[in-house]
Amino acid sequence: MNLLEQLSSGIDRIRTRKPLIHHITNYISLNDCANVTLAIGASPIMANDPAEVVEVVSQSAGLVLNLGTPNTRMLESLLLAGRKANELGIPVIFDPVGAGFTQIRTRTAEQLLHSIRLTAVRGNLAEIQRMTGDSTAMRGIDSLADENNAAAAVRRAAAQFGCMVAATGVTDYISDGHTVCQVRNGTPLLSRVTGTGCMTTSLVAACCAANGPSLISVVAGVMFMGVAGEIAQEALRPGEGTGSFRVRLLDAVSNLTERDVWEKGRCTVD
Amino acid sequence: MNLLEQLSSGIDRIRTRKPLIHHITNYISLNDCANVTLAIGASPIMANDPAEVVEVVSQSAGLVLNLGTPNTRMLESLLLAGRKANELGIPVIFDPVGAGFTQIRTRTAEQLLHSIRLTAVRGNLAEIQRMTGDSTAMRGIDSLADENNAAAAVRRAAAQFGCMVAATGVTDYISDGHTVCQVRNGTPLLSRVTGTGCMTTSLVAACCAANGPSLISVVAGVMFMGVAGEIAQEALRPGEGTGSFRVRLLDAVSNLTERDVWEKGRCTVD
Amino acid sequence: MNLLEQLSSGIDRIRTRKPLIHHITNYISLNDCANVTLAIGASPIMANDPAEVVEVVSQSAGLVLNLGTPNTRMLESLLLAGRKANELGIPVIFDPVGAGFTQIRTRTAEQLLHSIRLTAVRGNLAEIQRMTGDSTAMRGIDSLADENNAAAAVRRAAAQFGCMVAATGVTDYISDGHTVCQVRNGTPLLSRVTGTGCMTTSLVAACCAANGPSLISVVAGVMFMGVAGEIAQEALRPGEGTGSFRVRLLDAVSNLTERDVWEKGRCTVD
Repeated sequence: MNLLEQLSSGIDRIRTRKPLIHHITNYISLNDCANVTLAIGASPIMANDPAEVVEVVSQSAGLVLNLGTPNTRMLESLLLAGRKANELGIPVIFDPVGAGFTQIRTRTAEQLLHSIRLTAVRGNLAEIQRMTGDSTAMRGIDSLADENNAAAAVRRAAAQFGCMVAATGVTDYISDGHTVCQVRNGTPLLSRVTGTGCMTTSLVAACCAANGPSLISVVAGVMFMGVAGEIAQEALRPGEGTGSFRVRLLDAVSNLTERDVWEKGRCTVD
Repeated sequence: MNLLEQLSSGIDRIRTRKPLIHHITNYISLNDCANVTLAIGASPIMANDPAEVVEVVSQSAGLVLNLGTPNTRMLESLLLAGRKANELGIPVIFDPVGAGFTQIRTRTAEQLLHSIRLTAVRGNLAEIQRMTGDSTAMRGIDSLADENNAAAAVRRAAAQFGCMVAATGVTDYISDGHTVCQVRNGTPLLSRVTGTGCMTTSLVAACCAANGPSLISVVAGVMFMGVAGEIAQEALRPGEGTGSFRVRLLDAVSNLTERDVWEKGRCTVD
Repeated sequence: MNLLEQLSSGIDRIRTRKPLIHHITNYISLNDCANVTLAIGASPIMANDPAEVVEVVSQSAGLVLNLGTPNTRMLESLLLAGRKANELGIPVIFDPVGAGFTQIRTRTAEQLLHSIRLTAVRGNLAEIQRMTGDSTAMRGIDSLADENNAAAAVRRAAAQFGCMVAATGVTDYISDGHTVCQVRNGTPLLSRVTGTGCMTTSLVAACCAANGPSLISVVAGVMFMGVAGEIAQEALRPGEGTGSFRVRLLDAVSNLTERDVWEKGRCTVD
């Protein structure tokens, strides 16, 4: 089986296995993440209270930890849920929204890196680089990082964090510390809708939960969003803008086929 | 007036009376519930802080209590608002999202059942059955319950809870402990969009607030969502998926007419 | 440059400067506000924890304070962020959702008025009038105020608050305490979608951040939403309702041109 065959075959297994993906995530993209998880064929559960997250993880097949709207109560939940997921051996995908932008986000990201065995970190390039100690340009939580040395930076980050790392942007870089995959799907419209990064993290979690926590699963989750973004853009009619793009993005994920990924996926491996 | 005449006539009274529906609900479907409440012609207010819920209830015509993202602070608000609604005699619709899935949800559901005089409980079959003490299959907060004996189970639940019960699914079962109504509207797409259950609860609350807390009002709210789901599905164009379905669902509720309900409603009474 | 030229020219500067707009806002329209901010060409950051709001403001070009779902923790954040914004001289736009509806909202609005130097208050007419001490009809957080003396009331409010005031409704009234501008754009559909008021506040903040805190900027933000609403309504197809309107509203904002504003803007100045 070649690479695109491997990547595309993940979709059907998600739809057959319908893994339950527990999200501890921000209030901005909560609804979008639930809908994209349903669209790809998995099952979402959003729960962030310390009083129930351990029970919820115990019944889940994957866990998303997202820093989007951090507070002290949520930090407790992130740690409780992450530890339980580690104990049970289910994949944990961490989305360090705004790491490096404020101290609480940076510290929380560090604490999770040290306390939890993460399967993968999925962020933008600036977030990833700041987590490695580099100072990189950001506007709010958006990356203004120079992509010239991105492949090397992402490989180093993965080696440093001891887990897979996906830095998504114009080109997406995914590494396990050795191999670096570059995905060249997507459209600039993805950065004009809030929560598309968080939604990519949900897709990565669904892929890892259904197909195992491999580099292929992480690349697949990232690529599914990129391919869906291209399909959504092509479906736009005259006069439509970012509102319709957001709707068609969910349409495209819900209708995504192995053939779409096979035909449109653009991935190179270093 | 026959049953479908009675059910369909509720819409126009909602639009004339525009009842204010106070929601104490989860962060996932908050926006969807506000929009569906507006779409059917009622007026939503979302407020969950213990410091203001009593005042808000005092100015409202109906109250939705939803367990979607429970925490201790919200529990206090649920009780305060419910008691005030009872004092004022306004309808209280309870949505026990995930009851039976985690202890905090199960306990909160029990506490509300015992402390508040509920007008109706609207959940999926597994949530309803677990609240009666049956252990029934769930995946996260989704029901995997066997629908074979659903009618009897829902009648028993209504008798046990001392209020109306609506268990929605492929077939919807609504009972007051004596009569059981079965509604056979809807589409499987409704379960592929997050929050459609919560939105159904909002419609039930709008019906009860505008038309009185009767079995007819509860059945009407459930049927409005089912009929709107069918209209939304028929409106889908090639290439559209769950994102467009979600948009067209709101379209269908906002354009729903008595005639739609009259023509498409499928309800039997045991 | 005439008035409509001045108003329309603000769009391009937002897109060039991409100001970062920090929102401390409610959970209902959080996602909509982030998306409308992106659609007009600015950059949103939503953060409401007292532990990080000062840092976030320090990196922002504008601040939105919104009362939508008040609680004590958020109140602390509103004050911390507002004071820092004052210290840095960045515009602060206050949206007093439900002021006059509950005591906590009324008190918080008063406290912000007294503690923070606001650039502008953007609400509906009832909220504005209740903040000046008038008792005016509301249904929930919706205005039932008589618009007959609205221009005078808004001028008085601006003089009393010592900042610009925008009361949006069928006609929008914007005043700095001396001049009153009346904007007659929009559609009744805007009041059938939740969060359109909050989204208008985001547009006002983006205009003030990119173009300076002038009456022209506040009028421009209000007018952009009205014009976008008209374009969205015109784009509706048979069978579409409030769900599609909401999507096309975001489309219209994302595609809004100076020419649209120039051609469709309706504004008079007293």
